[in-house]
Amino acid sequence: MEAIRWNHDALSLLDQTRLPLEERWLPCTDYRQVVRAIRTMVVRGAPAIGVAAAYATVLAAREGAGTPDFAAFMARAREELASSRPTAVNLFWALDRMEACWRAWGPDLPRLEREAQAIHREDLEMNRAMGRFGAELVPQGARILTHCNAGALATGGYGTALGVIRAAHAQGKVAMVYADETRPLLQGARLTAYELAADHIPVTLICDDMAGALMARGQVDLVVVGCDRMAANGDFANKIGTYSLAVLARHHHIPFYTALPSSTVDLSLPDGRGIPVEERGPEEVSSFAGRRTGPAGVPVWNPSFDVTPHQLLTGIITERGVLTPPFGRGLARWFSQR
Amino acid sequence: MEAIRWNHDALSLLDQTRLPLEERWLPCTDYRQVVRAIRTMVVRGAPAIGVAAAYATVLAAREGAGTPDFAAFMARAREELASSRPTAVNLFWALDRMEACWRAWGPDLPRLEREAQAIHREDLEMNRAMGRFGAELVPQGARILTHCNAGALATGGYGTALGVIRAAHAQGKVAMVYADETRPLLQGARLTAYELAADHIPVTLICDDMAGALMARGQVDLVVVGCDRMAANGDFANKIGTYSLAVLARHHHIPFYTALPSSTVDLSLPDGRGIPVEERGPEEVSSFAGRRTGPAGVPVWNPSFDVTPHQLLTGIITERGVLTPPFGRGLARWFSQR
Repeated sequence: MEAIRWNHDALSLLDQTRLPLEERWLPCTDYRQVVRAIRTMVVRGAPAIGVAAAYATVLAAREGAGTPDFAAFMARAREELASSRPTAVNLFWALDRMEACWRAWGPDLPRLEREAQAIHREDLEMNRAMGRFGAELVPQGARILTHCNAGALATGGYGTALGVIRAAHAQGKVAMVYADETRPLLQGARLTAYELAADHIPVTLICDDMAGALMARGQVDLVVVGCDRMAANGDFANKIGTYSLAVLARHHHIPFYTALPSSTVDLSLPDGRGIPVEERGPEEVSSFAGRRTGPAGVPVWNPSFDVTPHQLLTGIITERGVLTPPFGRGLARWFSQR
Repeated sequence: MEAIRWNHDALSLLDQTRLPLEERWLPCTDYRQVVRAIRTMVVRGAPAIGVAAAYATVLAAREGAGTPDFAAFMARAREELASSRPTAVNLFWALDRMEACWRAWGPDLPRLEREAQAIHREDLEMNRAMGRFGAELVPQGARILTHCNAGALATGGYGTALGVIRAAHAQGKVAMVYADETRPLLQGARLTAYELAADHIPVTLICDDMAGALMARGQVDLVVVGCDRMAANGDFANKIGTYSLAVLARHHHIPFYTALPSSTVDLSLPDGRGIPVEERGPEEVSSFAGRRTGPAGVPVWNPSFDVTPHQLLTGIITERGVLTPPFGRGLARWFSQR
């Protein structure tokens, strides 16, 4: 399963707003289409946004190559791409990496294309490595709870949290995956359940407010989620609802992990207080499929992410192994060696 | 606001499955219509189910009065009504109270009607009393979180948890009510937000998975919820998601209350383990308004309720005052004196 394809002259994005009802690919030949696709969540998931932004930079370079001031054009394109969504740091990481290239090489399209493809390939490889390390944490017969979609659809392929689940499943260890549906946009129901069912991994869908009761019944052995940005102390932003799960897991003495590539770490932030949390429009909550769920005009609070303090983490699964507490300076050392 | 009306010869139920889009009243002249209305959640909320069942017993008595064996007819009708939903104990409490009457009085329709009206009126009075006692617990400028709908729509009128909020609002104490939307059936979005907005009480709608983040931001001063059945030790069943909120409130040192009339207490159960928890069909979770949200055929776990242990309760708001821990035998004494 994949959500991002590059065909030498165009980027194709699997439209994740339409899944699982419809598998429609959106062709993008202009970087501005990618800006819109990120903003409207046609493509979502921190690593996938990074990969898409890298390819969008190639599209921008092709257009910019014909302009009088290539660097000025590229800087503007970068700004537009950077403004698409605020929380996932992989976006800025990929734009930085591509900027170093276009500043050094100018409009060398084949070379820029190879760099974007490298970002894509490395993300996939990091996910497979995370899967190997993370699977060692999964006990035989595990019942695993996850939130939102940190799968192949959210990344360059294979997935972060779902990569761990895929690897553990390949080892015959997974009895059941419980997928939180993940309101308001239902990425757990629409994407995670879809992705796991397609791979014949046993999955049961629950509403977000059922996770605590499931834990109280002793039916969850571990929780693994993705990450949109991690600060230097291990505090991390992920899809809204992650923090509640972390508190519930702690209360029930259930191991709680996040899986992330080093591109998701933001060492410039000492802790989670500096992570910007996107708030989206009320209609995502107060209507569904064009039909109102709440009374007209009722105020809504709709943050897309929350920040989980590192104290609630049992471990951090990375492409180079598993970090366990205390994180402190060890985490910065670990990730600055990338 | 009210959801149950008795017009001397028929029961009218405000169809809560259609709110807030449509205010449609369902006339019931046959008790079997009430069985269906409870099962399909046209009428829902533990106290409201009790009131509806009392009136349904009057409808049954009118039909049974013309049969050769009145008691046998009524016993069958009682069975059917009792089988409509398993968790809320007010249903059985109201059926018991009405059974004592029809066994003693036979098909004395005016007298049975007065008894059902007394149940209805007493419920409303108990809610107003709970409101008075509960409002004393609410600090000035309170931001209150609630789950599902324990309002006028869920009761004979005024509400249990929302009765407390109404009374506190009348005293000028309520800065904001946060309403969990309450998946899967969205009673928080459809009913609580609707009810509070209609009464000009400030309300903000959130998804269930946002409650933890809201607490972490210091924006919740207390949580108050309803109750579908309380065991003798204070463990209580309420809408799925209540338990998660109780754990989150404890983690954040936020007071957590349930409000209930004594008809919701089941002293025959020593603790919450004996409370039957209804599980409903998968389509409530995997589709919305006829549109699929999850992939076809994905398994779903859909419990309607969870059980919160009494240790997580700051206090129990009743029509005779507020009980605080330790509950123990005091609770049984308190409620057996009704």
